[in-house]
Amino acid sequence: MDKKKVAVLGASGYTGSELMRFLLVHPNIEVVHLTAEKHAGKRISDVFPHLRGFLDLELKPLKPKSIPKDIDVIFAALPHGTSAEIIKELYDRDVKIIDLGADFRISNKNYKKWYGQHPCPELIKKAVYGITELNREKVKKAKLVANPGCYPTSSILGLAPILKNKIADESSIIVDSKSGVTGAGRSPSLDYHYSEVNEGLKAYKVGEHRHMPEIEEALSNYSGLKVNVSFTPHLIPMDRGILSTIYVNLNKKITTKQLIGLYKKHYQDERFVRICEEKVYPSTNQVRGSNYCDIGIKVNSSNNTAVIVSVIDNLVKGASGQAVQNMNVMLGFDEDMGLEATPVFP
Amino acid sequence: MDKKKVAVLGASGYTGSELMRFLLVHPNIEVVHLTAEKHAGKRISDVFPHLRGFLDLELKPLKPKSIPKDIDVIFAALPHGTSAEIIKELYDRDVKIIDLGADFRISNKNYKKWYGQHPCPELIKKAVYGITELNREKVKKAKLVANPGCYPTSSILGLAPILKNKIADESSIIVDSKSGVTGAGRSPSLDYHYSEVNEGLKAYKVGEHRHMPEIEEALSNYSGLKVNVSFTPHLIPMDRGILSTIYVNLNKKITTKQLIGLYKKHYQDERFVRICEEKVYPSTNQVRGSNYCDIGIKVNSSNNTAVIVSVIDNLVKGASGQAVQNMNVMLGFDEDMGLEATPVFP
Amino acid sequence: MDKKKVAVLGASGYTGSELMRFLLVHPNIEVVHLTAEKHAGKRISDVFPHLRGFLDLELKPLKPKSIPKDIDVIFAALPHGTSAEIIKELYDRDVKIIDLGADFRISNKNYKKWYGQHPCPELIKKAVYGITELNREKVKKAKLVANPGCYPTSSILGLAPILKNKIADESSIIVDSKSGVTGAGRSPSLDYHYSEVNEGLKAYKVGEHRHMPEIEEALSNYSGLKVNVSFTPHLIPMDRGILSTIYVNLNKKITTKQLIGLYKKHYQDERFVRICEEKVYPSTNQVRGSNYCDIGIKVNSSNNTAVIVSVIDNLVKGASGQAVQNMNVMLGFDEDMGLEATPVFP
Amino acid sequence: MDKKKVAVLGASGYTGSELMRFLLVHPNIEVVHLTAEKHAGKRISDVFPHLRGFLDLELKPLKPKSIPKDIDVIFAALPHGTSAEIIKELYDRDVKIIDLGADFRISNKNYKKWYGQHPCPELIKKAVYGITELNREKVKKAKLVANPGCYPTSSILGLAPILKNKIADESSIIVDSKSGVTGAGRSPSLDYHYSEVNEGLKAYKVGEHRHMPEIEEALSNYSGLKVNVSFTPHLIPMDRGILSTIYVNLNKKITTKQLIGLYKKHYQDERFVRICEEKVYPSTNQVRGSNYCDIGIKVNSSNNTAVIVSVIDNLVKGASGQAVQNMNVMLGFDEDMGLEATPVFP
Repeated sequence: MDKKKVAVLGASGYTGSELMRFLLVHPNIEVVHLTAEKHAGKRISDVFPHLRGFLDLELKPLKPKSIPKDIDVIFAALPHGTSAEIIKELYDRDVKIIDLGADFRISNKNYKKWYGQHPCPELIKKAVYGITELNREKVKKAKLVANPGCYPTSSILGLAPILKNKIADESSIIVDSKSGVTGAGRSPSLDYHYSEVNEGLKAYKVGEHRHMPEIEEALSNYSGLKVNVSFTPHLIPMDRGILSTIYVNLNKKITTKQLIGLYKKHYQDERFVRICEEKVYPSTNQVRGSNYCDIGIKVNSSNNTAVIVSVIDNLVKGASGQAVQNMNVMLGFDEDMGLEATPVFP
Repeated sequence: MDKKKVAVLGASGYTGSELMRFLLVHPNIEVVHLTAEKHAGKRISDVFPHLRGFLDLELKPLKPKSIPKDIDVIFAALPHGTSAEIIKELYDRDVKIIDLGADFRISNKNYKKWYGQHPCPELIKKAVYGITELNREKVKKAKLVANPGCYPTSSILGLAPILKNKIADESSIIVDSKSGVTGAGRSPSLDYHYSEVNEGLKAYKVGEHRHMPEIEEALSNYSGLKVNVSFTPHLIPMDRGILSTIYVNLNKKITTKQLIGLYKKHYQDERFVRICEEKVYPSTNQVRGSNYCDIGIKVNSSNNTAVIVSVIDNLVKGASGQAVQNMNVMLGFDEDMGLEATPVFP
Repeated sequence: MDKKKVAVLGASGYTGSELMRFLLVHPNIEVVHLTAEKHAGKRISDVFPHLRGFLDLELKPLKPKSIPKDIDVIFAALPHGTSAEIIKELYDRDVKIIDLGADFRISNKNYKKWYGQHPCPELIKKAVYGITELNREKVKKAKLVANPGCYPTSSILGLAPILKNKIADESSIIVDSKSGVTGAGRSPSLDYHYSEVNEGLKAYKVGEHRHMPEIEEALSNYSGLKVNVSFTPHLIPMDRGILSTIYVNLNKKITTKQLIGLYKKHYQDERFVRICEEKVYPSTNQVRGSNYCDIGIKVNSSNNTAVIVSVIDNLVKGASGQAVQNMNVMLGFDEDMGLEATPVFP
Repeated sequence: MDKKKVAVLGASGYTGSELMRFLLVHPNIEVVHLTAEKHAGKRISDVFPHLRGFLDLELKPLKPKSIPKDIDVIFAALPHGTSAEIIKELYDRDVKIIDLGADFRISNKNYKKWYGQHPCPELIKKAVYGITELNREKVKKAKLVANPGCYPTSSILGLAPILKNKIADESSIIVDSKSGVTGAGRSPSLDYHYSEVNEGLKAYKVGEHRHMPEIEEALSNYSGLKVNVSFTPHLIPMDRGILSTIYVNLNKKITTKQLIGLYKKHYQDERFVRICEEKVYPSTNQVRGSNYCDIGIKVNSSNNTAVIVSVIDNLVKGASGQAVQNMNVMLGFDEDMGLEATPVFP
């Protein structure tokens, strides 16, 4: 089989780097075009010394017209707004597009409220929200996939079974999320300066993070309920990993064991979701570098609530890994191609 | 004035080390007796090289009878159970006792349920729960102070004003706490082995941590309400610091600004509590090494809930600093003696 | 082709875990037997939750007779002494053995001095020291390979070209090495307790580390010179990575550029060694998770000395990765099979 | 006694923050004037939330004429070049000046070579190099003190005794230094972005760091020898601490015990230098937050070399603590005023 040709727009961030890690071991893929505005003219291995000997492609400026016509798949890892503008220009080509940014994840109404004016609202409805485990059939047929945000991925996978089964109060969900610093990207700022972050733990954008409407929309669409979430993100002094601690009020008596059973059944055919046994809660380091989402569950029967703990690697299942998973589905490949390796522990 | 003589029982842990840091700069205190079972015969500076030149006292075995009669204050930093047994023997002396362990923090009923049989239940009622800001008047007269746990300190200070003012639903409180690794003490185990913790973030004892009944009892006693808390502790890859994110349902319309105002008023005379302005949330590194508790507040008016973020240094306000603060109150000293230095940032 | 059957003795440490990571993606290998004394009876995924779904083999007690007869390759990751005893029993089988411990790395004379009495000194001479880049031809024919230590690997690869070319004083070499904490293994102790290591940097076993004679022997054998090394190891608060800063006195005028050229030529056919350009020095995070050794070079012409900076991942090129590389050479496979993925950055 | 009035120029960096920590507990000092170009108009507690309630002074723009006439002591923590220009304008006032920058640390000749044209070379000779332990008598009488660099402080204190006693070859000294990230200051850049530094360890400016001539000059002046040093700095993923591993060739037979004795005698009256016993090497965490320099020593008699390991807190003994120590000496105060607290461990 001929390899599929891939372009990555915005290749000089951590998301780009992780895409390379998976695409370069993918048997059916060839990376042929990379862009990076600030670093145009350099090679990818200048920007990422760890890639020396693997890929020495030159980084190009971001011009849609310069992207070769025979590209089969485009990954866009661009700032929001920019992404939509570029994709608008590319949409009519015979190409599959996976956008790792926020431009096609939520409805135009919410986009306006949380991000501002959308450059091409007509495309939003054509995009499929690429949380693979929930939307696989739609992803298969999609031309444009909106790859989910990191916090939403961990939250949605943690909540999907309980909401689908309609045993939790969808109006009072609390998601307390903790993220490693790579989630903030590769642009230096005081907030992510080493000595400010190390030994410093803080909450930010409490109740005002843009991933909140994304979580609510995705879960509402999936469950048919009107889901309301209180969302608090925290910055943790570590490189990778998101852990979301999710609190729900149950509307049915159920034991921890039963709820675990329900989750296991829900995800029984999923390669990348693992449910922990009773009294076991996952650590971010057991999914590090991998596309896994591991979930631990506890029911408190005295007040009929449940706590669900969901961990992912924010750069993998929360970004590049899920993007490759979506690509595999779109192209009809085995879903785990390029993603077969074990997590990297420790 | 003659200096007061202090003994520390169980001086070889991080709590003991921090007590030294504050007591050695305290103008009215002299440290004269230290015990440490495993390290008896060594000097404190053998166990803590950073103390060389400050204090070279020999560590003694833990025998109540060997504790000099002229000791004025005893700090006990011992395993639960052991602590109560020792304090039982010392109680009749003319001495002030501050127990940093769990033995006198909760009612006998809860103690039995969460810890087991209590060695001297009759003393529990004589002990004052030493969350200084709430119980100052009782601490002043106390002979025996139960110094609060680290998680409870951050949770209680974060919740006291809102519960006292009866504007939150006391039956549906969620406390999501994150702690640095010193909270687990100085005894090696796989759970706290560097390579297991670094880059690893996890929840543990979900809904089953012994600090949960402590929080509930202390807040119930303080507010007169029957407080119910869902408590989830998490281990964070950093040395020091606790951040508790607290979720409450409000039973009254109130804005963020108003709630901040209420907290500022509640704590207006407190040296060691600082309330952040709107949209500002505290980081653990701004209280590091100090006795401060910093609190950030956000009301979500759409669903009438509030998020309160409370940070402390678990070894200081969460243990040794608060113990010294209590001692100062018990002895009639200025409350911040020995605790005057700024936090250590970064 | 039939897959080769592999056994790993001592599979519950970080070395064992990393072996799994490479062997499980290796197309020609099947892992069929694992031992772990302390954890016998558990499954490997109980001990390493990140391996759930990849490998659920039961861990067996360490009994040579229980190791299936049809095993093709044995990796031993055992304490020194134990390793030699076990290998002695297995040596006559038709099997390839790779010992990741220290028992066959140095001469009996040095072993006696640094480790004690050797259980089977007659086997030492039959073993090949498996620093693949230097001893490839011998490794090809070896039945028993002594996989090098982590510090020695980084030191030897950094020094081999300059010593082979006889342009440095072999009697006055200084190796200042810095290692992440995984190098100390997975057994808890106060020295590797999180709160003792984090924010703590120290030297240890100055001039007395057992890897010193290993470096000297390997380089003496390779260069034909009598190499003398002053070696100082340091413990760094990070999980993975060794950086060795090597100081040599040059006995010939040479520029930085020329010395870099010499290194590039020396390693021109090596997949796993990368030489940096002038003024560029490698970081441990650019080899993390991979089998690479990256080297930076600086000549100080004013006093005719050179500084060589060599980085590896201690668990990969310094242990399990090199072991797999050696296995590939021994079995006639492509040398990078199972080791093709890029480093994991960040 | 009236308190001495202090101004800090450039107060918004870590050095400024640490100065506050010591000056605010200093019984004889009052901080009255702070400048910070970028943050002028804000209060110091806006820039450093940990200082809320301690000091709410407004940060002023850096204008010499705006500095009150009755200031007794000026600390300058400014970029090199700027510092000299400002100090030139202030020099004729009746004020003591302590410059924490590099402008007055080295001779004009070396300054030109390593930094460029000096704004007021005539003042260089009037400045005293403030490594207190070596130059105390000169510091006492100084009007202008050049506070040493962080790497030089650890190196010079580690080498002074052995060079003064003329038992080491001064022409072949190697200093391999490792520094925490606060040494790089508070300005964000990719090099100090959390995710680039954490788990990343690297050498930089090998043989080309500006602290090299500073070390050589200071030690040459002190010992009367022509000292030559090969210096390699490394960046370590931790906040604070410098550890310098120093390699010297001895020109006299001496045992480890004897060399330790010599160091103890040399520093016997020094409050802030502690010499470790044989086989004990200091960790950076035992001096964290304090003004101590701890030193471990090992002689290798087989090749007549010594290894000296010296640790400091780069922000304290390597910057602000030593500056306060120098101020105390200049003003005739007890040398440890404001610096009495124990290190902050862990």
